[in-house]
Amino acid sequence: MREIKVGLIGFGTVGTGVVKCLQRNGDLIAARSGIRPVIHRIADLDITRDRGVTVPPGVLTTKADDVLNDPAIDVVVELVGGTTFAKTVVLRALQAGKPVVTANKALLAHHGDEIFAAANASGADIYYEASVAGGIPIIKALREGLAANHIQSIHGILNGTCNYILTRMENEGLAFDEVLAEAQRLGYAEANPGLDIDGHDTAHKTAILASLAYGEWFGMAPLHIEGIRHLELQDLRYARELGYKLKLLGIVKLAGRNIEIRVHPALLPVDSLLASVSDVFNAVYVKGDVVGKTMFYGRGAGMDATASAVVADLVDVGLNLKYDSSQRVSAFRPHGTYDDVVSMDDIVSRYYLRLQVKDEPKVLGAIATLLGDCGISIASVTQKEPTSGAGAVPIILITHQAREAAFRQALAQVAKLDAVRAAPTMIRIEDL
Amino acid sequence: MREIKVGLIGFGTVGTGVVKCLQRNGDLIAARSGIRPVIHRIADLDITRDRGVTVPPGVLTTKADDVLNDPAIDVVVELVGGTTFAKTVVLRALQAGKPVVTANKALLAHHGDEIFAAANASGADIYYEASVAGGIPIIKALREGLAANHIQSIHGILNGTCNYILTRMENEGLAFDEVLAEAQRLGYAEANPGLDIDGHDTAHKTAILASLAYGEWFGMAPLHIEGIRHLELQDLRYARELGYKLKLLGIVKLAGRNIEIRVHPALLPVDSLLASVSDVFNAVYVKGDVVGKTMFYGRGAGMDATASAVVADLVDVGLNLKYDSSQRVSAFRPHGTYDDVVSMDDIVSRYYLRLQVKDEPKVLGAIATLLGDCGISIASVTQKEPTSGAGAVPIILITHQAREAAFRQALAQVAKLDAVRAAPTMIRIEDL
Repeated sequence: MREIKVGLIGFGTVGTGVVKCLQRNGDLIAARSGIRPVIHRIADLDITRDRGVTVPPGVLTTKADDVLNDPAIDVVVELVGGTTFAKTVVLRALQAGKPVVTANKALLAHHGDEIFAAANASGADIYYEASVAGGIPIIKALREGLAANHIQSIHGILNGTCNYILTRMENEGLAFDEVLAEAQRLGYAEANPGLDIDGHDTAHKTAILASLAYGEWFGMAPLHIEGIRHLELQDLRYARELGYKLKLLGIVKLAGRNIEIRVHPALLPVDSLLASVSDVFNAVYVKGDVVGKTMFYGRGAGMDATASAVVADLVDVGLNLKYDSSQRVSAFRPHGTYDDVVSMDDIVSRYYLRLQVKDEPKVLGAIATLLGDCGISIASVTQKEPTSGAGAVPIILITHQAREAAFRQALAQVAKLDAVRAAPTMIRIEDL
Repeated sequence: MREIKVGLIGFGTVGTGVVKCLQRNGDLIAARSGIRPVIHRIADLDITRDRGVTVPPGVLTTKADDVLNDPAIDVVVELVGGTTFAKTVVLRALQAGKPVVTANKALLAHHGDEIFAAANASGADIYYEASVAGGIPIIKALREGLAANHIQSIHGILNGTCNYILTRMENEGLAFDEVLAEAQRLGYAEANPGLDIDGHDTAHKTAILASLAYGEWFGMAPLHIEGIRHLELQDLRYARELGYKLKLLGIVKLAGRNIEIRVHPALLPVDSLLASVSDVFNAVYVKGDVVGKTMFYGRGAGMDATASAVVADLVDVGLNLKYDSSQRVSAFRPHGTYDDVVSMDDIVSRYYLRLQVKDEPKVLGAIATLLGDCGISIASVTQKEPTSGAGAVPIILITHQAREAAFRQALAQVAKLDAVRAAPTMIRIEDL
């Protein structure tokens, strides 16, 4: 039995979950793995709040230094969040040769290069299973379980708040603003929800998955990011009639030797497994060239699910300490197997397009001709009956595959038509 | 870069897949993991058949001893199948201190105790990711990714042939025999399909999952096993009308400190994610006390998916050789955390019950009274219109939760009623 002394920095929701998990399941974890992680110190600015767990006297401190400078501590768990103080904590620990476990996706997405360089310089481990898709062991799956595969694509539902909002819009016919307001009242969405609903949190996780899949730490710069704030209920309804469900996806794809990385709402075939992932749940759909289609599903956030991943990382760190095998699975190993990230202009997709048009003859013909002239081929058209007094009717088009730049060019021209009465609505379609 | 020399015993479908995968993706695997598995020798009785892959001269041999006795070989991959010669191969390799990778579920389910004892005695690794659910890294997930959890339940769709048959019955309204015959013609089902359709293959995998979850190598003795041969199309239809889909499941559950292990067809709520797993795909739905609900989905068999798992194991073995950390994650670590496997009599379930009854007054009342007297409470009843000239009508009952022994006792009495014209049909319902 190897006991490892854990120094926790940041005693918020996830930190509390880690302490609870180790108190409740410590014996089982030790029996199963031969490693017993024990909480040695916890640093947080607030050490008086009742978190529903009891820790021995002397464990709590308000000074991160009491963790970072304590030679007895075997591993530092960074649960501060953010990219400033958290970065200092992680770099100081790694530079001191001390392994780190973190759940901090923003930190890794923005500063992974610097952090992995520090880890590689000192040889210390940094594990980050909890940073993507919470309790789902997707990072272990990508780095180890699917190690034999060229990853052909990843489609991730990676933000529980967004998936909750889209599920309620879909199931209950509620508008985006309405669901968001209620989610905020219930504490499912932040008072400032931009990180979630504008796609940034999904993008952080997508950047990490892309980097692991393709062996280059991409950072955030190459990502195209769209959120769900602009989505309208009518498009969910029309899409559903056509056999699609709307999800916010983190998408990573191999296109030849190039790579696509993007975050945006997308329509999925309603009978696909990924489309069935609802409420706050996350899922990562991975296609490998050897294994074929796989999917990994579970809770992407929350005290306990995230703690499950942090504690699994502690066991891995503990095993590496026990066997003197730090960086056995490299924190991040760059390799030049693939080429560049392609521009959004160059992706190829099918598109859902809704136009509000004057209810008069020849409009549809003019639109179809214009799209055809731009090389955009139409797969299906639905023209809706006018609602009383509306003056404009919706036309829903599904296109065949087209290059994004060509589609956008066509769209700009369609928008200029006199008969088109509002800005067109476009949603990409992903065929899994 | 650490090169590891692989000795393959058994050059069938999966063996061919492993060779193909290493030839195609060897560079990527090496770049990603620092380990390069290289095929050193391959033993098979037939070394002349064209398998669509080319290996260097001198690699092929008809003698397993040429692999087992070759000191240059770092790891033995057993892909012979069966439980006789395969057992000899695995034990000899382990006794010689040589790590083993195997996909052999039957061997482990029946002789795991002996095999793990040999591994523990010599300290050699045995990895077996490919033995359960093919390409899905579920064993790694259970042993490592979910290490922090008491596993509350596992529901596995673990046999692709059965899932394919049930999917086609459901979607196309075909009878069991019809689909089986076609599956055999197409090569999706064996000429002797008993291992699959009578539930034994699912049982082997379920026994392995149960053992990993609960820290005792159970073997096959405690398993209750039912297959799908007896299933009738009408029950799939009636169940679907009531909101359920039929799957063959491997089920493992914690009931207090006791454990349930069983394989049988079961009805799942039609909107559950597991019910959406169709065709030849496998999925393992795992509930942990910390992580909550998770699911792992992918191909459970086939040349490539299985090879993906075998090669991932080769990387793990290679890393353990590189870092001198054999048994870093124990082949199997028994621990006395839980109590006994409960008898099938003591499980608690909801039940679907179809009775063929005489179409006359008071029959339903008599049945309901009899069930009530046995303590079986009815949740819903559907009586179908008689089909012309049938003389008997089906009554479909869904019960509330009941102990299996009580339900069976009630069923025996119901079957004796004069108005009941055929043996009752019972299917358990699993609420996930």
